[in-house]
Amino acid sequence: MPLVNIRLARRDIPTTASEKAALIEGITDLMHRVLSKRRESVVVIIDEVDPENWGEGGESVVAIRQRRQTNSP
Amino acid sequence: MPLVNIRLARRDIPTTASEKAALIEGITDLMHRVLSKRRESVVVIIDEVDPENWGEGGESVVAIRQRRQTNSP
Amino acid sequence: MPLVNIRLARRDIPTTASEKAALIEGITDLMHRVLSKRRESVVVIIDEVDPENWGEGGESVVAIRQRRQTNSP
Amino acid sequence: MPLVNIRLARRDIPTTASEKAALIEGITDLMHRVLSKRRESVVVIIDEVDPENWGEGGESVVAIRQRRQTNSP
Amino acid sequence: MPLVNIRLARRDIPTTASEKAALIEGITDLMHRVLSKRRESVVVIIDEVDPENWGEGGESVVAIRQRRQTNSP
Amino acid sequence: MPLVNIRLARRDIPTTASEKAALIEGITDLMHRVLSKRRESVVVIIDEVDPENWGEGGESVVAIRQRRQTNSP
Repeated sequence: MPLVNIRLARRDIPTTASEKAALIEGITDLMHRVLSKRRESVVVIIDEVDPENWGEGGESVVAIRQRRQTNSP
Repeated sequence: MPLVNIRLARRDIPTTASEKAALIEGITDLMHRVLSKRRESVVVIIDEVDPENWGEGGESVVAIRQRRQTNSP
Repeated sequence: MPLVNIRLARRDIPTTASEKAALIEGITDLMHRVLSKRRESVVVIIDEVDPENWGEGGESVVAIRQRRQTNSP
Repeated sequence: MPLVNIRLARRDIPTTASEKAALIEGITDLMHRVLSKRRESVVVIIDEVDPENWGEGGESVVAIRQRRQTNSP
Repeated sequence: MPLVNIRLARRDIPTTASEKAALIEGITDLMHRVLSKRRESVVVIIDEVDPENWGEGGESVVAIRQRRQTNSP
Repeated sequence: MPLVNIRLARRDIPTTASEKAALIEGITDLMHRVLSKRRESVVVIIDEVDPENWGEGGESVVAIRQRRQTNSP
């Protein structure tokens, strides 16, 4: 029973239900194809994290996005 | 100091405070009974996951619940 | 930067390096296809758990596998 | 690419954006100083957990905080 | 399908297979009793962490255990 | 009680006990300084992941390291 946990910084445009469904289906298919796992045994959990709570390179994703917007023409 | 993390797909009828308290107490008691851990050293964290973000067998829990309702007489 | 964590009960026949590479590639491709994530931003971590440490339905995977072998003709 | 996940019981006075930024910066600096990791490779994720969902010593943090308030003169 | 992850610092005397089986059974029973979860839907994963990799109060568990042994008459 | 989990791809030259102690001390100090957390309440867990099990940009860290060695003069 493979457990797959996806962690994403929540985007300004929320991840849609159909995108989540595509991720769940895609990962389930991948476990079946690569490891011959029974599809019904695959569990996928998607965590959407507040961008203020996600840091990369010493900055929060909120700060990174603001800097990119300021710098983009 | 055992750390116990419970992950649940959020139910239509939310898990109540007293159910969560019973889970916390039950797990703390179990760690004490089985592993002789000091009760005050046991940490329990309950994560409630949006059913749209939890997939089993290639479908989200939202889709699975809808299908069950449609099929139930 | 999506983080994807796969948890598997270690199998009697170990998961091979090329199967792991296929999982890493497959998940990276999926994040790119479904969420337009830059491939180099995708991190995949595979945890292989001792079957004695993985329980389903109240039994360890070791016990489940032994029962299946005993019941198979 | 070190991944650092901080789990906190949500406080009555919420953790501020600048406190989170200080945690992200502090951890990134620590990974660079101790393990010579490139700063841009360090990912930090902060999970704030509902105090009803966090148990210590058999009680939820909500119950612990209420008991402390009742006992404090 | 509740997922329960137990994290323990590996003890000098290893946690036995029967202790792990008792934890798996106990948690499965608890999920059934408190939340009416189907027993076969409960997944339990036990992570045993090297005591050098587990810190409490600024010290590793290795250092804490050594200090306790030195101080015990 | 903050829980901090550090995940690292295991390096060719293993992370030393003193480096791990410095990480544990540094994170404990940071939680105290930034969030006024009691030092003894801070738990740090370091997971060292096999480089074959860690993927970035669609490749395992093993493959990335080999490619870098081949390309370095």
